[in-house]
Amino acid sequence: MKKNSHRSPPSQAIARPAPSGGPLLFPKHWRAVVGQHAIAEALKTHPSWVEGLWLRQGWESSQDLKKLHAELKGRIAKIEVKPPAILEKLSNSQQGAALFLRESPILDWKRLAEQTQGRILLLDGIEDPHNLGAILRTAWLSQVSAVLLPQDRAARVTPTVHKVACGGVEHVPIEICANFANVLEELRKMGFWIFGLSATGPNTLFDLKIPEKVVWCVGAEDKGLRSTTERLCDELVRIPQADAAASYNASVAVGMALLETGRQQSAKG
Amino acid sequence: MKKNSHRSPPSQAIARPAPSGGPLLFPKHWRAVVGQHAIAEALKTHPSWVEGLWLRQGWESSQDLKKLHAELKGRIAKIEVKPPAILEKLSNSQQGAALFLRESPILDWKRLAEQTQGRILLLDGIEDPHNLGAILRTAWLSQVSAVLLPQDRAARVTPTVHKVACGGVEHVPIEICANFANVLEELRKMGFWIFGLSATGPNTLFDLKIPEKVVWCVGAEDKGLRSTTERLCDELVRIPQADAAASYNASVAVGMALLETGRQQSAKG
Repeated sequence: MKKNSHRSPPSQAIARPAPSGGPLLFPKHWRAVVGQHAIAEALKTHPSWVEGLWLRQGWESSQDLKKLHAELKGRIAKIEVKPPAILEKLSNSQQGAALFLRESPILDWKRLAEQTQGRILLLDGIEDPHNLGAILRTAWLSQVSAVLLPQDRAARVTPTVHKVACGGVEHVPIEICANFANVLEELRKMGFWIFGLSATGPNTLFDLKIPEKVVWCVGAEDKGLRSTTERLCDELVRIPQADAAASYNASVAVGMALLETGRQQSAKG
Repeated sequence: MKKNSHRSPPSQAIARPAPSGGPLLFPKHWRAVVGQHAIAEALKTHPSWVEGLWLRQGWESSQDLKKLHAELKGRIAKIEVKPPAILEKLSNSQQGAALFLRESPILDWKRLAEQTQGRILLLDGIEDPHNLGAILRTAWLSQVSAVLLPQDRAARVTPTVHKVACGGVEHVPIEICANFANVLEELRKMGFWIFGLSATGPNTLFDLKIPEKVVWCVGAEDKGLRSTTERLCDELVRIPQADAAASYNASVAVGMALLETGRQQSAKG
């Protein structure tokens, strides 16, 4: 049996909807995962972390939900049927199911220091959950070791982010940083180089010799990197684009930076 | 004055909402552009195509809408104030304004044949308007000459697509193709090579020597390229990824293919 001593019993915690409009009550560190791909990846990768499943009323008429129920029946302690409105509160684009996991991937700083190669993303105030989800999906598939988020004014890893990430949240540790300067200093000591994506960068992504250990800093939609974050970078780098006044979507820009990182590193290897 | 002989007068055409739930009535070939960036780019790029502007009731209390009104007052024939519900019918994420344009960028096939370099995207059934919009934004900034869409089962260039594309629709001609085979045969005669992005491709994007004239074929969310489309390709190519069973988001994959295309072409140039 799992140790439950550090939190409320799950039955009480997830069964009780909050006062209308407020957040749902379950332990704060639990993750509510929605979306077919995200749930499948969570069950495949972290079956021992699963605490419960919510299904919407009428799940019996959905082939997908029936399959999910059959797969989990007997395997997990708690399967509850909820009115659609309760699931809506988790995410307005869930597909009638939410899986609750008690743990999240954790960054192994010691291992990171020992690695000879590494890719880290620093997201400087991405507020759109779809962008954050898309970035986590790309981060997973591009072998990113960790994603760093600021403490304030940024999207959190909500159920919708889980859905859009299509399983990426199970693979990429996320660190909430009170202070980017301290974390980047630590990473620099481990041998990481810090690059910021910015249209004002003197060199393009193609000019850059990307080192083995690299942190990519990416700014918010519209605003780009904050100047305080830019100053923490070793170099600002731009992605070639037809119109200097416009910009790539943040998740596309991240994909481009990680692709070129992978290309250069695989060319060396 | 503009020639209006080929269509209904704009006043009649755009002022009349359709029976409840149905589409709005304005000439079918007009584009309704929503979103601050998309409207700004349309006004900058194609001022002579603008037919009218809708503002939501209460626009006077919004700085952005007041600025837009001041900019267009006297410049365009038709500015109308509409209840929010009418604008909602165009897009549920507009910001209180919709700009109507009577024309769209058109592909110059003759010029395409004469060019020594060219990039074309074929989207094989992208159904999510956010993905289509994100792809058009990337296509613009990556100097794509045209985007080919199928006649059925694919997102169309809706107001929401305009918004997400952030101006990309003003720059990239879109061709609706009744038959991909015929169009690709034409392009092949012009010197284009046809590549399909597919996890089953024998070679990766990095192994490929990308020619000067290239068509990238990209499949739908989840399903990937249809086998009929795969057979039209000269070669299937995969993007390296950590888990072969997963896949990049279509707009991220497009960004990656176009980045590597640009890198190889700029390395030659």
